[in-house]
Amino acid sequence: VDPTLPIALERLARLLGRLPGVGERSAQRLAVHVLGQDQDYARALGEALNALHDSVGFCRQCYHLAEGELCRICQSPARDPRQLCVVEDVPDLMAIERSGEFRGLYHVLRGALSPLKGIGPRDLTLDDLLRRIDAEPPEEVILATSISVEGEATASYVLGLLRHKLADGKPIRVTRIASGVPQGSDLEYLDQATLGRALRARLPFQR
Amino acid sequence: VDPTLPIALERLARLLGRLPGVGERSAQRLAVHVLGQDQDYARALGEALNALHDSVGFCRQCYHLAEGELCRICQSPARDPRQLCVVEDVPDLMAIERSGEFRGLYHVLRGALSPLKGIGPRDLTLDDLLRRIDAEPPEEVILATSISVEGEATASYVLGLLRHKLADGKPIRVTRIASGVPQGSDLEYLDQATLGRALRARLPFQR
Repeated sequence: VDPTLPIALERLARLLGRLPGVGERSAQRLAVHVLGQDQDYARALGEALNALHDSVGFCRQCYHLAEGELCRICQSPARDPRQLCVVEDVPDLMAIERSGEFRGLYHVLRGALSPLKGIGPRDLTLDDLLRRIDAEPPEEVILATSISVEGEATASYVLGLLRHKLADGKPIRVTRIASGVPQGSDLEYLDQATLGRALRARLPFQR
Repeated sequence: VDPTLPIALERLARLLGRLPGVGERSAQRLAVHVLGQDQDYARALGEALNALHDSVGFCRQCYHLAEGELCRICQSPARDPRQLCVVEDVPDLMAIERSGEFRGLYHVLRGALSPLKGIGPRDLTLDDLLRRIDAEPPEEVILATSISVEGEATASYVLGLLRHKLADGKPIRVTRIASGVPQGSDLEYLDQATLGRALRARLPFQR
């Protein structure tokens, strides 16, 4: 605590400092910035924070953020229920939405398997995923967990759970998002693991 | 606006996105993070924001942040009124306080002269500075405005205002913080202007 700062400012800075990526100094800077703005801004932000948990929860079906029982994606008649994309968490879902490449439904696992962090299958929303797939089997399940040891382990585990599931008498197709050299990246500076993967996963070249 | 996100979350993200250094995506990420925390945290942050402007204002004497009429520095009997340090804004004051090198008083100008941004002498707290110096002249005024075109122009302007001011019959000493190579920095990667300045401002070497 900086003894030269007003207590109300320090209190705000301490709370802001608990946000991810906000250190002690930048929390102070943010608090001073808010104070320098119109009071209406601080009030609006305060009210948005107070209202947040009361008006936003998780979708009963897919665990995306939702204002009611179902999220806006599960509610939308424009989305294709034949494709189900499995992600670790909401920011991943949001990133896929921004890509504009996917028009199916999602399932948010709320984490990834991690023996180190003590996260096992029961900590994820896997039971709900299976119930959902049994009730309304999609043609394809896209595993979009992260490209990391934990993400791979989670994808493998889900693959095992889905192995004998059928949709209209046919096995459900289980796919994994591609891993490789990212767009615009310079091979010279790319990490070995990514480059090795990109080589192993090479495809016939077409033009 | 992301149509797949709850409105209450979007509202919070939009407000967070107005903070300095917080882009649209990181605002969304922060909002999702807050939602993932205990509701008590969001409430505490909301209340701290609501209370901020009501309990914190600016010091009547130096324009630092203050809970009452005077800030904690101006109120402190431990500070030396013979030294007055002039800074552009509150974060600069806080940085100097963190250095632990200064035990005098401050004056916050609330900006720097900038013809480009349309900021002239009347937009700064210069009248208050002069009134204050006339009422209780310090022995030394330290100009700690930034090392930049605007900071230099502001320091020169203040120097002009103080030229004929006296303290106990003697001219007030007006000094400027040193500019040079920062601690631990590698000359090879330092910008030309800083290195040039450091050379011109060289001092006799002592050991």
